[in-house]
Amino acid sequence: MAAIKAHGSLISTATTRVLTTLYEKDLEFEFVVVDMGAGEHKKEHFLCLNPFGQVPAFEDGDLKLFESRAITNYIAYDYADKGTQLTCKDTKKMAIILVWMEVEAQQYDPVASKLVWELGVKPLVGMDTDTAIVEENEPKLAKVLDVYENRLAHSKYLGGDCFTLADLHHLPTLQYLLGTQTKKLFDSRPHVSAWVADITARPAWLKVQAMRNKH
Amino acid sequence: MAAIKAHGSLISTATTRVLTTLYEKDLEFEFVVVDMGAGEHKKEHFLCLNPFGQVPAFEDGDLKLFESRAITNYIAYDYADKGTQLTCKDTKKMAIILVWMEVEAQQYDPVASKLVWELGVKPLVGMDTDTAIVEENEPKLAKVLDVYENRLAHSKYLGGDCFTLADLHHLPTLQYLLGTQTKKLFDSRPHVSAWVADITARPAWLKVQAMRNKH
Repeated sequence: MAAIKAHGSLISTATTRVLTTLYEKDLEFEFVVVDMGAGEHKKEHFLCLNPFGQVPAFEDGDLKLFESRAITNYIAYDYADKGTQLTCKDTKKMAIILVWMEVEAQQYDPVASKLVWELGVKPLVGMDTDTAIVEENEPKLAKVLDVYENRLAHSKYLGGDCFTLADLHHLPTLQYLLGTQTKKLFDSRPHVSAWVADITARPAWLKVQAMRNKH
Repeated sequence: MAAIKAHGSLISTATTRVLTTLYEKDLEFEFVVVDMGAGEHKKEHFLCLNPFGQVPAFEDGDLKLFESRAITNYIAYDYADKGTQLTCKDTKKMAIILVWMEVEAQQYDPVASKLVWELGVKPLVGMDTDTAIVEENEPKLAKVLDVYENRLAHSKYLGGDCFTLADLHHLPTLQYLLGTQTKKLFDSRPHVSAWVADITARPAWLKVQAMRNKH
């Protein structure tokens, strides 16, 4: 039995954020599918893992965690010597990485997640896209990506010279949006576009894509 | 000239989050007021500090940071041996603190900030409160505080036995809401209420309140 268990669903961006981190760190783990269609994430046994009733949840031996970005941080620090270095020991360099991790969480994700829901998930489950929400959020995402374009003109990755959690945290929402009309916002910005091509081609992310395609 | 400069506005919750951290760590700093009424945060010299044109921005010598939670993290780690310990060296204990820092950012703040804007800020600047937004968000905050009540029944602070960034990050929005009708949601939960009384009485927070009252 694996010490590490990741509980979640492959359609959940927060779940695939954690799985990508586990693959980047070359860690063995068990993926426990949570049947969200059957409301399993709102049942007592799951609420013991995450009191907010959301995927993912995570176990490493006795340690139980939730919130995807807390889980990826834990993995990156506790398994610092395995696989890809996703953080940096130098406090000042790490501070810059943290800025761009916060940018993902506070500026990019709230807008990107709304577009993922309207354009990526709703059509999958037979619901109608609310075009007003799309029209409100695409210009907001464009503004965020203008800042990214400027940053990536001077820095190969968001946090600096190396791929880190700051880039990785974008992958799940990014991949959804590449399959929608919103792709144009990434394509029209050359440095953003090169960054997207680079990070979506990483072996760890391709492994998560392969898991999704199998299910 | 102080090496540390915090740029921001005392009505901004993100700014006071940073100031509180500086006081908890007993650090000397210069507070540079950004005149948001005059749109100073959207001008070129400020955009060099924060490309999103939002307060706060932060300087420590040559290092320039933005995003309040990235700044507080940097301060807590880089000045680990000064003032209050706001993080934990043990990776597993720190993972739990990180979970509750993410809960603040992802579950509490998006709802609390909407209520702060409608009930705390709009009346201050002569705008009308949108009661529909209040009615939508108070039940959401209540649900989050139900989880907090349960957590705080078993743990003195959100992250564990000690006051950490996980608690501190709540202070600015919390203080605003205590001056509004939403106070009832905190008062009606005994463990939440005791936690609120404890963290709002901290000397570092009282210093920030005194700064606000002077302006």
